[in-house]
Amino acid sequence: MIDEKYESISPADFFYRNKEIAGFDNSARATYTILRELLENSLDSCENNGVLPDIEIRMVRIDDNDDKFINKSTENGELLKIRVIDNGGGVPQEHIPLAFGQVFYGSKYRLRQARGLFGLGGKMAILYGQITANSTVEVASAQIGSKIIYYYELMIDITKNKPIQLKKKIVENLDGWHGTMISFSFVGDYYKAKNRMIEYLWQTSMILPYASIKFIDPDGVLYTFERKTEIMPQRPREVLPHPHGVDVELLKRLITRSKGMTLKEFLIENFQRVGSKKADAFLNYAGFQPELRVEKLTQDMIVKLSVAMKNFSGFLPPDASGLSPIGEKLLKIGIKESLNAEFVHSVQRPPSSYEGHPFIVETAIAYGGSIQPAGEGEINLYRFANKIPLLYDVYNDVSMKIIKHIDWNNYKLKIYNEPVAFFVHICSTKIPYKTVGKEYIADQPEVAREIELGLRENARHLSAYLNKKRIEEINRNRLNTLGKYLKLIAKYSSELSGLPEPTNLPAEIPTEEVIR
Amino acid sequence: MIDEKYESISPADFFYRNKEIAGFDNSARATYTILRELLENSLDSCENNGVLPDIEIRMVRIDDNDDKFINKSTENGELLKIRVIDNGGGVPQEHIPLAFGQVFYGSKYRLRQARGLFGLGGKMAILYGQITANSTVEVASAQIGSKIIYYYELMIDITKNKPIQLKKKIVENLDGWHGTMISFSFVGDYYKAKNRMIEYLWQTSMILPYASIKFIDPDGVLYTFERKTEIMPQRPREVLPHPHGVDVELLKRLITRSKGMTLKEFLIENFQRVGSKKADAFLNYAGFQPELRVEKLTQDMIVKLSVAMKNFSGFLPPDASGLSPIGEKLLKIGIKESLNAEFVHSVQRPPSSYEGHPFIVETAIAYGGSIQPAGEGEINLYRFANKIPLLYDVYNDVSMKIIKHIDWNNYKLKIYNEPVAFFVHICSTKIPYKTVGKEYIADQPEVAREIELGLRENARHLSAYLNKKRIEEINRNRLNTLGKYLKLIAKYSSELSGLPEPTNLPAEIPTEEVIR
Repeated sequence: MIDEKYESISPADFFYRNKEIAGFDNSARATYTILRELLENSLDSCENNGVLPDIEIRMVRIDDNDDKFINKSTENGELLKIRVIDNGGGVPQEHIPLAFGQVFYGSKYRLRQARGLFGLGGKMAILYGQITANSTVEVASAQIGSKIIYYYELMIDITKNKPIQLKKKIVENLDGWHGTMISFSFVGDYYKAKNRMIEYLWQTSMILPYASIKFIDPDGVLYTFERKTEIMPQRPREVLPHPHGVDVELLKRLITRSKGMTLKEFLIENFQRVGSKKADAFLNYAGFQPELRVEKLTQDMIVKLSVAMKNFSGFLPPDASGLSPIGEKLLKIGIKESLNAEFVHSVQRPPSSYEGHPFIVETAIAYGGSIQPAGEGEINLYRFANKIPLLYDVYNDVSMKIIKHIDWNNYKLKIYNEPVAFFVHICSTKIPYKTVGKEYIADQPEVAREIELGLRENARHLSAYLNKKRIEEINRNRLNTLGKYLKLIAKYSSELSGLPEPTNLPAEIPTEEVIR
Repeated sequence: MIDEKYESISPADFFYRNKEIAGFDNSARATYTILRELLENSLDSCENNGVLPDIEIRMVRIDDNDDKFINKSTENGELLKIRVIDNGGGVPQEHIPLAFGQVFYGSKYRLRQARGLFGLGGKMAILYGQITANSTVEVASAQIGSKIIYYYELMIDITKNKPIQLKKKIVENLDGWHGTMISFSFVGDYYKAKNRMIEYLWQTSMILPYASIKFIDPDGVLYTFERKTEIMPQRPREVLPHPHGVDVELLKRLITRSKGMTLKEFLIENFQRVGSKKADAFLNYAGFQPELRVEKLTQDMIVKLSVAMKNFSGFLPPDASGLSPIGEKLLKIGIKESLNAEFVHSVQRPPSSYEGHPFIVETAIAYGGSIQPAGEGEINLYRFANKIPLLYDVYNDVSMKIIKHIDWNNYKLKIYNEPVAFFVHICSTKIPYKTVGKEYIADQPEVAREIELGLRENARHLSAYLNKKRIEEINRNRLNTLGKYLKLIAKYSSELSGLPEPTNLPAEIPTEEVIR
């Protein structure tokens, strides 16, 4: 018989042992994931504070003068240092050690749209630096209006899941800067990660035309992704849970906070889209007394209540004000400028919901410009979730399945051979990702339906545009043919009529004017 | 500016909020995942104790006499209760509350092959019962030789990630039973999950021909998967880490435990396959003094040591004794009996390693029997990892990619149109899963190589078998043709020779004998 050893491990330890589930499989993937997680945290911070994002990322190779690394580019990667500076809202100084040094601590456990819903990515990046390069993390931060910049140097005690504070400094904020600076080293592989990283930044700037992003890479090359507009989408608000998304655990938590309330008050107070009438109708359906105090609910009654809340069909669909879609106009600007496209049509679908989580789908189809035909069996598909480009695992994504399922002959579109590109953006307080690595969207039927409706509307518009273009083409060709004979016609006409030839004939028929 | 609220959440709370990443997306998927996680824990417990597994699973619908559930089968699922009884080693009673009531507590954080490497699945199943049905979990357990059965009824305090003990009973163990019984209710969907569940059980019994599994489903149907052999594969041993798998964090932890040792002693003591000579050779390569005390190592020296350990090519490949492959013989028995196959060839590849983790690949190809041709573009692929069948996401799996990449014409095999099935089993102390949901294997080049070599060897044998069969077929046809004329030949021969006709001619030529 084997001696089974039982032990408890910390959350930091769990993710240290299982790095790959958060996208840190190997040095190349980790390099990409680190850039992405830090950038996303910065973007969230800017957007939540209504600031036009200005983000600078610098990645450098660390010279190996002190022989610490036997070879700076071994097959196991190279020593890199990343520094990201944003102009977001900053982190309150008292939260800095925990926010950067403890797994499962953060500001993202709220019901509103955010990129890093798991609240895990930034910490995993820091952890990765520590376990591969023994790196500390340096954080500097100033909140908006703060006269002080707080500077910390930290490590993570992985076994205890606690920050270790190595340094703390206070600097006068002379320039009125606000935002966060984060910097650490790690063993990465820029050469292998480069293409993905540049593609990621480029797609980010496409979906966020109001952001300005600079990236200085380890070879010293500067990539600039400029701001294309100063318009920003609305900020996401924090919202109450929808009754359809409830479970027993959530009910119990809310009840604990609501001692003394009647059941009716409890429902109105704690859930979105439940007013007095709706609460009465629901309680009547579920067979509860509106005046019952919540602390009187037994365990069995709580279960019954939760099932009834899921099943009652009279609730209004979830409130989408916790969401922050891009909007048809911004989406069009981003795509048009990034791809120099001849035609873009974008659609924002009305809010919908799955399992009590509100979501909005935005789709677009672009044509021409620098778009290349995808080739047989391939599809130019750009996917975004809560404004994040999704680069990996495209073939598993629900959008890909929908595009392959639509009969494009109905729209006279040859999706493999024409210069056409598809865009799908889904935003939600809870993106139905399949993995912690956040790379593709699960097949929620409600989500699939909205994507299909959006793309079909885009396709109708593109089809109409291409039809019109084809007709114009035919007309232009016809007029040009006519134009060649214009002088001859004039000559014969003058001979027949006995009048003099017109002298101001154009060389060719001005087709544009004739058509319009 | 938005008021950012910072807070800490517990591991239980994290997975409560992100159920889908552990395979609890919806009631159907959860039903399948619960069966799977409980069965896998039971199998691990039996195998680690060298006991032939005898496992009984019962799932029942809970009657709704007390009106707790408005409708037993709503679109949001039905109330089910699961009970699993095994004959494994049991759980020491003092560990029961934590082992079943605290996320990140368990006996699986050891370096040996186990199914539930994340140590998470069982707890997630219990958590799911609690949050959907407010269910408690009942656990009874007796260790081998114990005269007492311990019985607990527990819940999980999700916010604190601590068990809540509701009941504890002690019962005399009159029958000398050992093992674990676990039981709880949850809101599931058996109708939708059924096919997957039966398939999963069937594939489990195929890869574990020494296990006996009974499943009584909610409709009262009994599925029996009988033991096909009493031979069990060797048990996995716990092993030391391999030097190539080291990182700074691990080094630091081991150094803390090794105070007073010299560097040389430290290496020999803490790593597998490092003896005195190997330690000297490595330390010479890395530029360290063998007699240096480990507590004298600075942070920088630890980093240098870790990089050197990764890069030194002189270490022997990892020890595979922490692994428990099925073996060519058992694999063949399982496949042959489960599929009633005409031909099976199985291969166990020699141990290999990726990133310092040892692994063994076993592959097989089966032909005929109840195997049906897969059809154009489809492949009959059965995948297993540490003896677990993988049912989802087959198209992302590295094995699928390899099968599609091999040119089967070289083996005269039409994989879409012939009754052929492929089997890939990888076992490792660290399976390179892509997701917490444990559904498919990442493309580690070392793993991919072993799979390809195994399948090619299987294919050669199948090809030879089919060739031989084709030749036999031709011979048999030829002899049968000959046989038709046998009497005639005999008659003519007797006329020509003037001798009497032979009287004991067979009706047909006994082809079997002639061929051999």
